[in-house]
Amino acid sequence: MTQTLNELELKGRAAKQAAKQLAHVSTALKDQAINLIADQLIERQEEILRANAADRQQSEQSGLGAAMLDRLLLSPARIAGMASDVRVVAKLADPVGEMLDMRTLPNGLQIGRRRVPLGVIAAIYESRPNVTVDIAVLCLKSGNAAILRGGKEAAHSNAALARIIADACTTAGLPAGSVQLIESPDRALVGQLLKMKDTIDLVIPRGGADLISYVRDNATMAVVTGGIGVCHTYVDSTADLEKARDIVHNAKTRRPTICNALDTLLVHRSVAPRFLPMIAQSWGQAGVEMRCDPAAEQILRGDSAGAPTAGAATRAATEADWGKEFLALVAAVKVVDSLDEALDHIARYGSGHSEAIVTEDYAAALRFLDEADAAAVYVNASTQFTDGAQFGLGAEVGISTQKLHARGPMGLRELTTYKWIILGSGQTRPV
Amino acid sequence: MTQTLNELELKGRAAKQAAKQLAHVSTALKDQAINLIADQLIERQEEILRANAADRQQSEQSGLGAAMLDRLLLSPARIAGMASDVRVVAKLADPVGEMLDMRTLPNGLQIGRRRVPLGVIAAIYESRPNVTVDIAVLCLKSGNAAILRGGKEAAHSNAALARIIADACTTAGLPAGSVQLIESPDRALVGQLLKMKDTIDLVIPRGGADLISYVRDNATMAVVTGGIGVCHTYVDSTADLEKARDIVHNAKTRRPTICNALDTLLVHRSVAPRFLPMIAQSWGQAGVEMRCDPAAEQILRGDSAGAPTAGAATRAATEADWGKEFLALVAAVKVVDSLDEALDHIARYGSGHSEAIVTEDYAAALRFLDEADAAAVYVNASTQFTDGAQFGLGAEVGISTQKLHARGPMGLRELTTYKWIILGSGQTRPV
Repeated sequence: MTQTLNELELKGRAAKQAAKQLAHVSTALKDQAINLIADQLIERQEEILRANAADRQQSEQSGLGAAMLDRLLLSPARIAGMASDVRVVAKLADPVGEMLDMRTLPNGLQIGRRRVPLGVIAAIYESRPNVTVDIAVLCLKSGNAAILRGGKEAAHSNAALARIIADACTTAGLPAGSVQLIESPDRALVGQLLKMKDTIDLVIPRGGADLISYVRDNATMAVVTGGIGVCHTYVDSTADLEKARDIVHNAKTRRPTICNALDTLLVHRSVAPRFLPMIAQSWGQAGVEMRCDPAAEQILRGDSAGAPTAGAATRAATEADWGKEFLALVAAVKVVDSLDEALDHIARYGSGHSEAIVTEDYAAALRFLDEADAAAVYVNASTQFTDGAQFGLGAEVGISTQKLHARGPMGLRELTTYKWIILGSGQTRPV
Repeated sequence: MTQTLNELELKGRAAKQAAKQLAHVSTALKDQAINLIADQLIERQEEILRANAADRQQSEQSGLGAAMLDRLLLSPARIAGMASDVRVVAKLADPVGEMLDMRTLPNGLQIGRRRVPLGVIAAIYESRPNVTVDIAVLCLKSGNAAILRGGKEAAHSNAALARIIADACTTAGLPAGSVQLIESPDRALVGQLLKMKDTIDLVIPRGGADLISYVRDNATMAVVTGGIGVCHTYVDSTADLEKARDIVHNAKTRRPTICNALDTLLVHRSVAPRFLPMIAQSWGQAGVEMRCDPAAEQILRGDSAGAPTAGAATRAATEADWGKEFLALVAAVKVVDSLDEALDHIARYGSGHSEAIVTEDYAAALRFLDEADAAAVYVNASTQFTDGAQFGLGAEVGISTQKLHARGPMGLRELTTYKWIILGSGQTRPV
């Protein structure tokens, strides 16, 4: 144990040393290393696939569900996809060294802010092994050293990927310690890592709510958390209902297991009798279960108008369903009397991730944009767009639901800070 | 006690309610309220001066030092200065609502980031009563509600100022709860405040190292800390020594009690025999004590060359003097062999606040700007310029020495966050 902890300190020291050098490495050299990682992922794919097979075998034996097993799976096609994502990052503009607001003051001082790397970034994440590659490459491009700690399900895959990344860095001439993986499964190491505030500048937990709250409660350094998305879509009284059906259907079903998926559908009372059967039919075909408040349930059961209803399975929502991130083909459904009620519900139950309104009313759209307090606020579009690549950042290390430093998808820029640069010629400050 | 704690919860609720409204108040109305605060500071100055006299009397009785008493003092001139600073903030551009990087994606989605207030900001600070006015007005302008907790020395003054601010807000039509002061001296309230993460979005501690580490260790919400400045100025082998003397003298003596004042002077060995006697003479006239490493001490004592030395009192530096924020007419002095040694010393002992090099060498200047890791990095200028007003921010709530969110002087922009705004026309995300 002591030996393992010391190993972590050594990694920390190597990362700090690497960060000091990475901050000043040219964009060309960083891109060369990143493209070499992409090459090597393809070239050494047998090694990756063997490691991945070992992970899958262990996970099958320990009874991991089919959805999780699929997230774990690497295939030649998925490896090719990873390599191609890596090449995208190489093509992104380097944020480091960008000068912001440079100007000359009346006293002749030239002053501006220069974008610089944060330093050492630790990421703690679960499951999908491609996260290892994504975070490593984004950290490299933004001039940061990375210390990675993946989930135990993907331990062999992550180790193989980290080896390939480290080898490519060394070959390209980047410092050893640029990207390091913590391989030991010892959970005490995470606790130890969170104490290393003199070494680590930022820790990013990516995973379930338990991981995130553990990191938030125990980290002594800065943390950017996120990835918990309790996302609402509100169908307003003036909504184009065909548009609304497509948006709501997409927001829930395109990928139900990601954080930007719809969790709760809010529908204005005046359109609920027409809209709910429409969406129930679409959702029914996709296997979505609807957890309804009494008003929605009544409409869908046809008790009031006797209208025919088809499609999705319904059951009564419980209090626990509001504000729940389902990560599955389940949606809570509530009928509301007004935009105000929708906004109040979102303020109470939302997680500050992604919120949408479907409306043809100008004033309602503006109010929703103003008042829904979330990282991403949509009018007439699917919340599934909340994603670094979709937002034009090229890639992301995660989606922040906090307000400080970064909000929403975190790309290269969000892995940087700035320093004030002041060029003088002997200026002193008058009393 | 329970009653007091409940009072804090009530203040929190009022602040949250106010923040919701303040986020959408027009710039014109905010500026009107801010200008009214300035008017009322002048109009009600008798009330302020009476309260201030009570604070001074108490502080004199409890034996507060002259420097601290001076910081506490309000006079008609200082009140006029405060009012004039307030009017400067009214004239600053409103950061709220600024759109960043708005663009249209290939699928027709219009997307950009909108600058929005953080919400509720708590500030915990010591001593100078003008901080009450500064922070209140900056929070108002940036659309945030403020909960203020000042030092007990200024309790009466802060209470008078907060009354005037609250009255002006109400008169102007801003929500009650926009600016609230915690008046009870009960220290348990600070602990309670730091637990209110559902109410308070950001806490800013401004004061000594003890306050800052207490807040950092106990806050459950985001914290931006700073104000601890261990600032170095390095006089390079190629420095223009006259320029260096002026810069170094100003950095230490203009105001020795503020965080951007020089703490440690580093001098290249090749110029130390000429430069140290020069600065010792200047500093001697200002009453600066020099705590010297052996090489500097030898030069200043004239033991080696027998050169005449005059001026500043010298004594041997101890290890505790490196990395110490003196906040007084004291400076640590060290002779170094190279820029590398200077940078290593700064990396080891600096607090990430303000660092300066005096040099005529282009490469040395560029290296220092690259490698000194601090909020503000200077070439050939006094570190005393690190200040929101000097940097063109108009004013500041504090100076951050952390890397996340804000670095260096925090003005209006640093009291905001952003939300992604996405305007669609029915877009759904393809699989």
